[in-house]
Amino acid sequence: MTWWFAACQKPNEQMKQQAIARQLQLTKPTGSLAALENIAIQLAALQGTTQPNIERPWICIFAGDHGVMEENISAYPQAVTRQMLQNFATGGACISVIARQYQAHLQVVDCGSVGEAYEYAGVERHCIRAGTANFAKTRAMTEQACADAMALGRQSVEDAIAQQASIYVAGEMGIGNTCSASALSCFLLQEPAEALTGIGTGIDTAQLQHKKQVIDAALALHQNYVQDDAFKALCAVGGLEVAAMVGAYIRCAQLGLPMVVDGFISSAAALVAVCLNPQVREWMLFGHQSAEYGHRRLLEALDAQALLHLSLRLGEGSGAGAALGIIQLACALHNQMATFAEAAVIGEKVSS
Amino acid sequence: MTWWFAACQKPNEQMKQQAIARQLQLTKPTGSLAALENIAIQLAALQGTTQPNIERPWICIFAGDHGVMEENISAYPQAVTRQMLQNFATGGACISVIARQYQAHLQVVDCGSVGEAYEYAGVERHCIRAGTANFAKTRAMTEQACADAMALGRQSVEDAIAQQASIYVAGEMGIGNTCSASALSCFLLQEPAEALTGIGTGIDTAQLQHKKQVIDAALALHQNYVQDDAFKALCAVGGLEVAAMVGAYIRCAQLGLPMVVDGFISSAAALVAVCLNPQVREWMLFGHQSAEYGHRRLLEALDAQALLHLSLRLGEGSGAGAALGIIQLACALHNQMATFAEAAVIGEKVSS
Repeated sequence: MTWWFAACQKPNEQMKQQAIARQLQLTKPTGSLAALENIAIQLAALQGTTQPNIERPWICIFAGDHGVMEENISAYPQAVTRQMLQNFATGGACISVIARQYQAHLQVVDCGSVGEAYEYAGVERHCIRAGTANFAKTRAMTEQACADAMALGRQSVEDAIAQQASIYVAGEMGIGNTCSASALSCFLLQEPAEALTGIGTGIDTAQLQHKKQVIDAALALHQNYVQDDAFKALCAVGGLEVAAMVGAYIRCAQLGLPMVVDGFISSAAALVAVCLNPQVREWMLFGHQSAEYGHRRLLEALDAQALLHLSLRLGEGSGAGAALGIIQLACALHNQMATFAEAAVIGEKVSS
Repeated sequence: MTWWFAACQKPNEQMKQQAIARQLQLTKPTGSLAALENIAIQLAALQGTTQPNIERPWICIFAGDHGVMEENISAYPQAVTRQMLQNFATGGACISVIARQYQAHLQVVDCGSVGEAYEYAGVERHCIRAGTANFAKTRAMTEQACADAMALGRQSVEDAIAQQASIYVAGEMGIGNTCSASALSCFLLQEPAEALTGIGTGIDTAQLQHKKQVIDAALALHQNYVQDDAFKALCAVGGLEVAAMVGAYIRCAQLGLPMVVDGFISSAAALVAVCLNPQVREWMLFGHQSAEYGHRRLLEALDAQALLHLSLRLGEGSGAGAALGIIQLACALHNQMATFAEAAVIGEKVSS
């Protein structure tokens, strides 16, 4: 049996009940902190503690290039993937600023970008292959390459746990990867491109129409191979960085590290992970609902409520990273607010 | 002419244009940070700076009691207003935790709660009157009392500016004040209670029906006095703490201090402020959309997009306070992200 089917940790039910009981005693009308209460309760159960916290967040950006770029499906050129890798490491990217803001460790893993060999300080370079193959013509990855990419995600989570990370965020960089994530989502949800394809970094209407045609043709091309196998869908139309995220999500749940899922591409990876190993779902929080068309549908499929609705559509873990601030606040409120008894505040409602 | 009609400051159009230009140069797809870009641009214009920031947030909680509590319209007893005042000051309330989280100064101003004279460290006690009169029977406040309460808000903003505050949050505490805010909103929007009345801290269906009846009767009682005068509506059915917030919002705009509006009661106050002095609107950010029924309608009337949608319904400035984290992040991204030129990243889209 491959590692990703192995059992996940179980959330701590006793800590969950204690957290629910505590929330009922805090000096506020019952349920009035809504989503903030639910996060604190979920984290208490996942971290197995009465004092949930995200003092040591770990953010990992996985990068990879996409052969389907040959089909002219993106607003930006492929070279941007590499350039952004350097920008993450030198601290100028959105996720770099977010990591500083929330004292998160930022790990950058290149799973296979296109270009010459390089060394950038702060980037872990792997080259499973120099970008995927063009899935409009052939499978994006062999099953071995896909498993190798998933293992990079597994390793990142093991690194995070070795450093006592309290919560895990995976982000991605890969010009063309909304095209891959849409195709992948179509296989998982058995929908045509129309239902799950958006403008990504900002293509125009004609390009969007073309992108959908490329995806629909790829679905037909790979259907016999994929059938209803999520791993095969990942091999057929996924990306190296998407596969790494799938591996990371599964490993988080197996080792008991709560994670925050980001936007459209991350959610496609999350859905693959949950299809492969349904117990993974319990370990997921959902950072934001992206403006990318199709993300809402993925969140529904994952039965997920996103924390933030800011119309972000940047990727690189930015929506999940932004949500760290809200999760941090939810923990502080849970841990620091006074109870009715401590504050000598009447906690009983008047009889009606 | 009374002070609240005096002109407001003008946002700095040049700084706004510079901020828009900078956002277009940051290393991300155009517009991909959406709401976070808009906040930074708005703040740059309001603070008149290329480096918007909220390093010194000021939060003021205004408290007051409500005579309409005689009509049995709330889930919690009136004594809770006083008890919560002490909880704010001793650090156990939700907004106390939020203030610590974002290094905000927390000011607590009692505009008129019911009970004996007291001294609590950290609470500024005023007693314009010991709660409003029961607006089901008579006007809640005289015009003089209302003006006095508005002056407390004005003073709080002047205190904040004396301490170099960078952004202002008003919150409220007053058992029964959703009833007052609903009645006030009904006058301003010329709607019946049905359109703007919710469960507040958590009354049941029968109590909600009763609350609506109390409000509809009060609208009929005060219609001749109020006509379409927002100040008279405030006197007829408002609260001391609501009037103080109106004064604070107007003073912020007059002195050029950006503010974050909280939930349902705060938005009712914001709408009064904008009715009295329309230039106030430009200085407002909107922290969250509350779960309280009617808040969406108020936000529409204010032509406002809320930052957070967490289903909070606590009041005391908590939703606006929670939004400080997002605003802080928006500023950090604006100020710290690299430009395409700095990071040597291609910023031009490919031609389609």
